Amino acid sequence: MINRIGSRTIGFENRPAILGYASVAGKKESEGLLSNFFDRIIYDEYNGKETFEEAESSLQAEALRLALEKCGRHANELNAVFAGDLLNQCTASCFGLKDFHIPFLGQYGACSTMAQSLLMAAVFVESGAANLAAGVTSSHFCAAQRQYRFPLEYGEVRTPTAQWTVTGSGCCVLGRGESKIRVAAATPGKIVDLGVTDANNMGAAMAPAAADTILSFLRDTQTVPSDYDLILTGDLGLVGSRNLYDIARQEGVDLRQVHNDCGLMIYDRERQDVHAGGSGCGCCASVLCSKILRGMESGTLRNILFIATGALLSATTAGQKKTIPSVAHLIHLTTN
Amino acid sequence: MINRIGSRTIGFENRPAILGYASVAGKKESEGLLSNFFDRIIYDEYNGKETFEEAESSLQAEALRLALEKCGRHANELNAVFAGDLLNQCTASCFGLKDFHIPFLGQYGACSTMAQSLLMAAVFVESGAANLAAGVTSSHFCAAQRQYRFPLEYGEVRTPTAQWTVTGSGCCVLGRGESKIRVAAATPGKIVDLGVTDANNMGAAMAPAAADTILSFLRDTQTVPSDYDLILTGDLGLVGSRNLYDIARQEGVDLRQVHNDCGLMIYDRERQDVHAGGSGCGCCASVLCSKILRGMESGTLRNILFIATGALLSATTAGQKKTIPSVAHLIHLTTN
Repeated sequence: MINRIGSRTIGFENRPAILGYASVAGKKESEGLLSNFFDRIIYDEYNGKETFEEAESSLQAEALRLALEKCGRHANELNAVFAGDLLNQCTASCFGLKDFHIPFLGQYGACSTMAQSLLMAAVFVESGAANLAAGVTSSHFCAAQRQYRFPLEYGEVRTPTAQWTVTGSGCCVLGRGESKIRVAAATPGKIVDLGVTDANNMGAAMAPAAADTILSFLRDTQTVPSDYDLILTGDLGLVGSRNLYDIARQEGVDLRQVHNDCGLMIYDRERQDVHAGGSGCGCCASVLCSKILRGMESGTLRNILFIATGALLSATTAGQKKTIPSVAHLIHLTTN
Repeated sequence: MINRIGSRTIGFENRPAILGYASVAGKKESEGLLSNFFDRIIYDEYNGKETFEEAESSLQAEALRLALEKCGRHANELNAVFAGDLLNQCTASCFGLKDFHIPFLGQYGACSTMAQSLLMAAVFVESGAANLAAGVTSSHFCAAQRQYRFPLEYGEVRTPTAQWTVTGSGCCVLGRGESKIRVAAATPGKIVDLGVTDANNMGAAMAPAAADTILSFLRDTQTVPSDYDLILTGDLGLVGSRNLYDIARQEGVDLRQVHNDCGLMIYDRERQDVHAGGSGCGCCASVLCSKILRGMESGTLRNILFIATGALLSATTAGQKKTIPSVAHLIHLTTN
């Protein structure tokens, strides 16, 4: 049974269960702060494939395969997979998942896609549209770099506010079975555009969208930040996280005590030259499906908000000097 | 209440209602076979904007505005909009819909996106996740041409199997109110890839996916083609439609008597030099939201299957000589 809560939040009465989850990460990510938490590390950026794009597809396939394996389910039991990525026309997902022969519903919310995919999977499972559904996203530094910015060979100099696209993937399998981790509610995001145009400062572009969704959820559920163990944003990075605190404070909400950001958690910013932090659909997916969900399983985390944020730009709109509209979707996860 | 029917089909017990719908089309489309059915014609390919991409965004905004107007609803009543398009990172949708301030859930299924968006809207309405939801997609010949193929100025010579990207948009508003047209069921598509690599023959690439979804639906519901007034595919065009008949016949199903294709309905192929027919997310959206839904409203059509087909390629994968994986999603529409 699905209930609407307040103006924007969706409540799941039976709390769909996260039955299995898995994360796959690249070499640089394995040298960061979460190295012990990933299920698989891909040391070769081609992962044995001919192109970076194919390598990214293989990350998604691997994450889905591992997530299914970890909960003892088979691909043919899945009634739907919700997936997306940053490549033009979401081809990492299409090519990565085509051989599983699962009903495929492509999602696009830029780096917010993991939360969006979980929202969809939860709605499908709770409503009976699916018995078993999966959400999976990915990003790949080399594929993203040459599509959005410059060929790697160019040796682009990065600005201090720039973020580093994570090579990684994360997958969750949702169903009605027994599990410690459950989806209690979700808030789909509205597009927010305050006029930021600097594609090297996406944290600033995305912070207002994150604030809008978080504050809406708190209003809808009549809760406060201290009700949660963790309010985890997708990839605002250093600049965007500070902006988020400022916007929330103006609305009388202090997020600093319980907030963290996947873009700040994945790398060792002192050592790894990633500037403002990590980004990409694979950033929050691989962080959620490693340290965070393991923390919920072990009981160190019990009640969290996961808010993935997306910058809805393309190389075309950036070249045309357009603003960067952004969106953030929220998932409320609890343990039994 | 949502019921699973057979192996892949989703049945909607309360049959979400299509409360409002609208179509917007370009000049060439207005000179085709459906000129009297579109709600608005955009004669200027820029629609008063600076770029083709902005023009495409304005088509989506206009379709949504008109669909809301036609059912007397306001944007702030919408709990979700499901939207997508063919531009890199779905920017036609993001920029076109950002000023409506509606929870935005971007969909990507290439030219299957309209059926996918309707499927999502129906699941959200039936399950109570939304009281009112919309599905909208678009395509724009000039924006697609320069992104996927060549700059217009190049004067590309087209192959006989090539299709013409429709400049157009269509939108449906779904809810639980009174309406003659209702969504009875839906079948999400699996990705099918039989190895076609010719990006100028997307009908051939998509036909196996269309056949897979249609045959699954017929099996799941234990119905036959003659149970329907119309089995309408998205944009297989001339070549893909023939391939569909062949594949279905091999499975003992004759689709020819009740089948039509949006790509064949929109243009006058004798006069308009569109080769194998129309294509693009805006093709099936504008055909569905003009002649087809008007036919259901007037009673000439009562029971139809709408199957939008998508070729899941990008300019990158085409350049890398990859195959063209395809997908087709099905919506079963009935009148009271």
